[in-house]
Amino acid sequence: MLTPALLTRVVGAALDEDAPWGDLTSTTLLPADATATADLVAREPGVLAGGEVFATAFTLTDPATVVDLHVADGDAFAAGDVLATVTGSARSLLTAERVALNFTQRLSGIATLTAAYVAAVAGAGPGGKSVRIADTRKTTPGLRAFERHAVVAGGGRNHRFSLSDAVMAKDNHLAVLQRGGRDLATALREAIATLPHTAHVVVEVDRLDQIPAVLSGGAHTVLLDNFSLEDLRAGVSLIAGRATVEASGGVNLDTVRAIAGTGVDVISVGALTHSARALDLGLDVRID
Amino acid sequence: MLTPALLTRVVGAALDEDAPWGDLTSTTLLPADATATADLVAREPGVLAGGEVFATAFTLTDPATVVDLHVADGDAFAAGDVLATVTGSARSLLTAERVALNFTQRLSGIATLTAAYVAAVAGAGPGGKSVRIADTRKTTPGLRAFERHAVVAGGGRNHRFSLSDAVMAKDNHLAVLQRGGRDLATALREAIATLPHTAHVVVEVDRLDQIPAVLSGGAHTVLLDNFSLEDLRAGVSLIAGRATVEASGGVNLDTVRAIAGTGVDVISVGALTHSARALDLGLDVRID
Amino acid sequence: MLTPALLTRVVGAALDEDAPWGDLTSTTLLPADATATADLVAREPGVLAGGEVFATAFTLTDPATVVDLHVADGDAFAAGDVLATVTGSARSLLTAERVALNFTQRLSGIATLTAAYVAAVAGAGPGGKSVRIADTRKTTPGLRAFERHAVVAGGGRNHRFSLSDAVMAKDNHLAVLQRGGRDLATALREAIATLPHTAHVVVEVDRLDQIPAVLSGGAHTVLLDNFSLEDLRAGVSLIAGRATVEASGGVNLDTVRAIAGTGVDVISVGALTHSARALDLGLDVRID
Amino acid sequence: MLTPALLTRVVGAALDEDAPWGDLTSTTLLPADATATADLVAREPGVLAGGEVFATAFTLTDPATVVDLHVADGDAFAAGDVLATVTGSARSLLTAERVALNFTQRLSGIATLTAAYVAAVAGAGPGGKSVRIADTRKTTPGLRAFERHAVVAGGGRNHRFSLSDAVMAKDNHLAVLQRGGRDLATALREAIATLPHTAHVVVEVDRLDQIPAVLSGGAHTVLLDNFSLEDLRAGVSLIAGRATVEASGGVNLDTVRAIAGTGVDVISVGALTHSARALDLGLDVRID
Amino acid sequence: MLTPALLTRVVGAALDEDAPWGDLTSTTLLPADATATADLVAREPGVLAGGEVFATAFTLTDPATVVDLHVADGDAFAAGDVLATVTGSARSLLTAERVALNFTQRLSGIATLTAAYVAAVAGAGPGGKSVRIADTRKTTPGLRAFERHAVVAGGGRNHRFSLSDAVMAKDNHLAVLQRGGRDLATALREAIATLPHTAHVVVEVDRLDQIPAVLSGGAHTVLLDNFSLEDLRAGVSLIAGRATVEASGGVNLDTVRAIAGTGVDVISVGALTHSARALDLGLDVRID
Amino acid sequence: MLTPALLTRVVGAALDEDAPWGDLTSTTLLPADATATADLVAREPGVLAGGEVFATAFTLTDPATVVDLHVADGDAFAAGDVLATVTGSARSLLTAERVALNFTQRLSGIATLTAAYVAAVAGAGPGGKSVRIADTRKTTPGLRAFERHAVVAGGGRNHRFSLSDAVMAKDNHLAVLQRGGRDLATALREAIATLPHTAHVVVEVDRLDQIPAVLSGGAHTVLLDNFSLEDLRAGVSLIAGRATVEASGGVNLDTVRAIAGTGVDVISVGALTHSARALDLGLDVRID
Repeated sequence: MLTPALLTRVVGAALDEDAPWGDLTSTTLLPADATATADLVAREPGVLAGGEVFATAFTLTDPATVVDLHVADGDAFAAGDVLATVTGSARSLLTAERVALNFTQRLSGIATLTAAYVAAVAGAGPGGKSVRIADTRKTTPGLRAFERHAVVAGGGRNHRFSLSDAVMAKDNHLAVLQRGGRDLATALREAIATLPHTAHVVVEVDRLDQIPAVLSGGAHTVLLDNFSLEDLRAGVSLIAGRATVEASGGVNLDTVRAIAGTGVDVISVGALTHSARALDLGLDVRID
Repeated sequence: MLTPALLTRVVGAALDEDAPWGDLTSTTLLPADATATADLVAREPGVLAGGEVFATAFTLTDPATVVDLHVADGDAFAAGDVLATVTGSARSLLTAERVALNFTQRLSGIATLTAAYVAAVAGAGPGGKSVRIADTRKTTPGLRAFERHAVVAGGGRNHRFSLSDAVMAKDNHLAVLQRGGRDLATALREAIATLPHTAHVVVEVDRLDQIPAVLSGGAHTVLLDNFSLEDLRAGVSLIAGRATVEASGGVNLDTVRAIAGTGVDVISVGALTHSARALDLGLDVRID
Repeated sequence: MLTPALLTRVVGAALDEDAPWGDLTSTTLLPADATATADLVAREPGVLAGGEVFATAFTLTDPATVVDLHVADGDAFAAGDVLATVTGSARSLLTAERVALNFTQRLSGIATLTAAYVAAVAGAGPGGKSVRIADTRKTTPGLRAFERHAVVAGGGRNHRFSLSDAVMAKDNHLAVLQRGGRDLATALREAIATLPHTAHVVVEVDRLDQIPAVLSGGAHTVLLDNFSLEDLRAGVSLIAGRATVEASGGVNLDTVRAIAGTGVDVISVGALTHSARALDLGLDVRID
Repeated sequence: MLTPALLTRVVGAALDEDAPWGDLTSTTLLPADATATADLVAREPGVLAGGEVFATAFTLTDPATVVDLHVADGDAFAAGDVLATVTGSARSLLTAERVALNFTQRLSGIATLTAAYVAAVAGAGPGGKSVRIADTRKTTPGLRAFERHAVVAGGGRNHRFSLSDAVMAKDNHLAVLQRGGRDLATALREAIATLPHTAHVVVEVDRLDQIPAVLSGGAHTVLLDNFSLEDLRAGVSLIAGRATVEASGGVNLDTVRAIAGTGVDVISVGALTHSARALDLGLDVRID
Repeated sequence: MLTPALLTRVVGAALDEDAPWGDLTSTTLLPADATATADLVAREPGVLAGGEVFATAFTLTDPATVVDLHVADGDAFAAGDVLATVTGSARSLLTAERVALNFTQRLSGIATLTAAYVAAVAGAGPGGKSVRIADTRKTTPGLRAFERHAVVAGGGRNHRFSLSDAVMAKDNHLAVLQRGGRDLATALREAIATLPHTAHVVVEVDRLDQIPAVLSGGAHTVLLDNFSLEDLRAGVSLIAGRATVEASGGVNLDTVRAIAGTGVDVISVGALTHSARALDLGLDVRID
Repeated sequence: MLTPALLTRVVGAALDEDAPWGDLTSTTLLPADATATADLVAREPGVLAGGEVFATAFTLTDPATVVDLHVADGDAFAAGDVLATVTGSARSLLTAERVALNFTQRLSGIATLTAAYVAAVAGAGPGGKSVRIADTRKTTPGLRAFERHAVVAGGGRNHRFSLSDAVMAKDNHLAVLQRGGRDLATALREAIATLPHTAHVVVEVDRLDQIPAVLSGGAHTVLLDNFSLEDLRAGVSLIAGRATVEASGGVNLDTVRAIAGTGVDVISVGALTHSARALDLGLDVRID
């Protein structure tokens, strides 16, 4: 969720990065009292994310700027649609333009890609069961809250925010737990007993035969990493509702529907945030 | 250039974002005294950028960690190559892993894409003249210095850093300068006269007939935006060395070589930073 | 968990608060080259928390200071025990003394009070079942991570860290969910379906008759707030292992053992952090 | 004094600590347009401190929130009194509630305890002379300005703010000044001569026989530490108005009136801030 | 250019420095509801810079304060002129007074000194050519943007802002470029080829005979450092419009007109910022 | 006093201001492995202040740099003296040079000017009584601690640091205290009774006849503002050791000795910090 504090801090830092001591061009070439109107126009179809971020870039630069959002985060739009209109000082509009676009293009790119994954798995679960598309921690450093917001705008779901708020045990952790021939289920159960009772525990497994011990150890989610479709189906069957089933690895728009068909609950997709391309949005400015 | 202050501030903030009050998993599941070794392995070929950033993620998390970089920024590598080796506390390595990879995958993705553009234009200028591939301000908010560094690692060149350090006059600015029937060259010259003498002035034009006035007005670079190949050639010919010639718009890996062939000096490419996908690099960890 | 970043930021800010432009007394009255040794001495028995914080106050003030901790966080000590020894510049020791003590006295006070609660419930659950003593969000603004660390040092357990990492639905939330005569279990289940799958959901109830709907709605923990002992027992029985059972309200050192005897899993105690008094620890300084 | 800058920085940081990326519960379970009213109700009698801090927690979370304070800082109230009323968005109210209470409970606890000390010494000085109850530097790290404000609200007085703004010479400092058989009065006078003329100098003594030299050396306040009542009386008599007389050590609600009866000017009490328990204040929220 | 972000950050930090926990005097001696009016009065003639900074000091302290600026930055005024009027709370006015004056006196001192240099060179170039007076990086740490703004208010021009936005090659750099007998022009040209095409390159020379190579190497500005008037004239003649000619060294109000007469384009003067004295401005406060 | 925290924060910010994303010149023109030696040389005689600041500028830029200070803060030097020697990476030295000099020239300018005032009043008091030269709050925003340190290095003394740590009542405050015909001494005494007992109270008077009431009201220092020499002598006589006597207004190097001759204890001089010019110090760099 994008709190006012997050918006102010992150967008403010971006504006400072892009104009640490002002916009040399606008202050030199435009009269201080010139006003302008600008339309945010979609150059290609997509799903909006970051409307509030877009607005914040303008109002932090100049509180007198008025931003009218015509489309809400999560809404789909067509090429040519006008998504928002900004009015205010010409200098202020041109100073904030690039930062506003950099955020909105990137976040809308993520929302649009997420929406494609969500559409791909619609009704694909066994018996029409809905499957969740979730993000990962493969986000842009400094922009995690913003990119997670974009995933939700695209119809996706968030995973844990950080290393501090949920547990994810992977191969290395499991190997350590089993040292000295220790029983995995026992070792896992004892470790979980020291955690906050509100801590969700995901355990990643590479093979089907790890599942019984992991369930017995108390995992809340079993993450089946890089499983074949057949093994995913076997895993779902083995887990049988005793934990949430998450799949990851080898997920792309070509494979995701089949993965959803195996009956897993959640498919986590790093590409949502690490490889979405910026959506082509433009600002058409008319100086009065 | 990545100063120590930038590295500490930006990488530190990313670590704080990813583990605001520690790594619940590692502190619960790994003994405090376990040590580990990790190899940064390329899962696909590419060009490295961000080696120092990678190292900083580990040493800020734990100053006792030792990072040995086997490949320098700007070096090309093959799939399977080991790019760096990290040794230290198992907890520290697993805590820093994701942030280290998030930066390095993103920056190496930019370097690799830049290198592809640079290779595409090699020797493509008239008479073998070299053409520069340059970045733009379409960078990730908060990471501009890092992404510009990656562009240079890929063989590209930087454009102005921000709105504060060079002038770029676009259509709106030119329209305002000409209000009331004012002569563009005169208006531009007078405006430039109020700037620091060290300010470089780029003027973007949409049509060939704007060029004489812009040159006469004192532009140091003329940016030919969305020109056809034919018009680019005409522009180069018209400018005739009196200013740097920059081309932008419609540039992709399919078109860039032809654009270079027109004789322009610089081709600026937003895609280098706004749409590079993360390169697939992985960390193979062995807990001792 | 106290990360190096947290220690540096919070302890550094405290030092800055206490000596924004240096220690007027020490710099005026002590020679720059005088050295000293100081013992951290317990004036009353207790449990230590904040040893690392104590050390950080000295080393941030002067990196040349050597701090030798004789007792680890979580260890009990008797009145008169020497818990740590500090050697270094006399000026530096006296400058950092108060901040070091302010932290350690407060955190050890929390650990000591927590240990009393933990001791009070030892073996008190039905059939010797162990019961967890947990903290709440009633912590000192700015010191949550430190106070949670102290609770763990005292043998207690942490609850959710913040509003961002787990859900706790209370009376107002439940009332809103049921508006328009909506079925609570359905409304709750639908709401949970929009959360990250890693989000733990606590639902607080005031009456036994709310429990079936809450369980059916998917709560992971049912918090029985201000229940009589009889009702707590009935609640445990009704929930029957389908969710974690947490008790809160009216908990103090006189009542906690009986509450533990009802079979609840977790007892959350605001007093651990909001009303612990500082433990009496002193620093005996000898200037050489 | 709580400046706007202090309120914004410290309360803002506390809100950020408690909801770094928003309130998962409220945003999931409450409609965005639900409004609510909340009363701050005293569950026990006391003295208010932190009304402005309480209000700031709500207005920083959402500037549209209206906070109406019915009781001023320093006012006494009875159990059941409504101290303030808050109206605004239901989400915003529930998001800010805990931080608002954490501050106000803690600060009102300090004010209430201070008021008890102040009442205990009323008219207790010889001839009805009034005696000051003062705080110390034993405050919560990061909250010193807030806790000092609470002491004043309770009728107490502040001591020096920090190591930077007044001098307090203790046993170690005096020992160093006398090294090599140097005369204490002379050594002290020479040291004071190097201080800003606006620096107040407190000298702490352990024995009556130190007083003449300390007065002669120019101390503005003589702090009699851990003196018996008899020795306090002797000290007051010996100092005879030539310096302010401060007593500390062994001060509690049982002993403070007798100490005041000895004629000292100031009694400094660490417990005011290091061991006050949070006052029981609650927020009764009604969602519209 | 003084962006809102810069004003808030730098003026806010100055207010915090001057009243970290409030104004003891005003809060003790003035009623909270007293109002006042204050005139900013010139005690000597000069040129104003920092009107907006002056206003910000008052409005950050108390947003209810009204500041009416009668004179704009860059305007000249006489002794006795009222430059601005402030109305608001008496406490707020007296709290902000010193910081407001510290900035405005310092910045107006710079503007006034700059105006003297600008006046000294008016029409002094050959054939009446105008010569620019420029600042340097010899500014007060932390106040560069503010002092550059003052230079512009005084009619001067800015040089590069920082080491990051333009190149200035000095004797040491040139010596390194020529190592191993390398040709300076070639070495310089190759180095420039690696820079952003928007980077302006200043090369400082000590002798006339360095000029041909430097021009041939592609310098945009040739800085003639500590040249005699005769050599300056020779340098201008040699450069012949192929680069901007900048003079520095030995510049003061006695020498600057003669230097301007040599035909150089820019004279850079460190004294504008490193040695301007504060202008005598006062605040006449009337409490209502 | 310059604490490590102050040095790091203020010098770090200055370095960041001067090279936000690195030194374009050095990284382009100098090999990464070139080393250099630099001497800090006095171009004119003076008194050093800021040696530690000078060193910090280099070591923050590059921890491998070695700075050897040959002269201590407060030492006088002659033109041509080498004050410090720096060795390290050529790039690092040239990057930090300007910031190091900007601080040291400014601070040494203040120390040198202060030393001139101190010398001017040596032995000038009646009967050879020594008189203190003190600074004021007329310091550069953001650099107060540094400039106060320079005043002490020059042999001067500090006044109160800020509005928060001592009281200074001026004409407006006194007028308010006397409203409704209230007796000034009584009003002042009652106000002082609400202050911390460690708060020093300065009262500024404009006329001799105000002195008795101010003394009776409990002022610790009486500040005689803009008094004639005759009135200063009368003031000293009237105060007769019952308070510290401070003189201000109309103080310059021509008048200060006569003012000292009147018998005042302290002369406060705004010019020490608001109008000192930078001392001419240079860095002679030799690249190896």
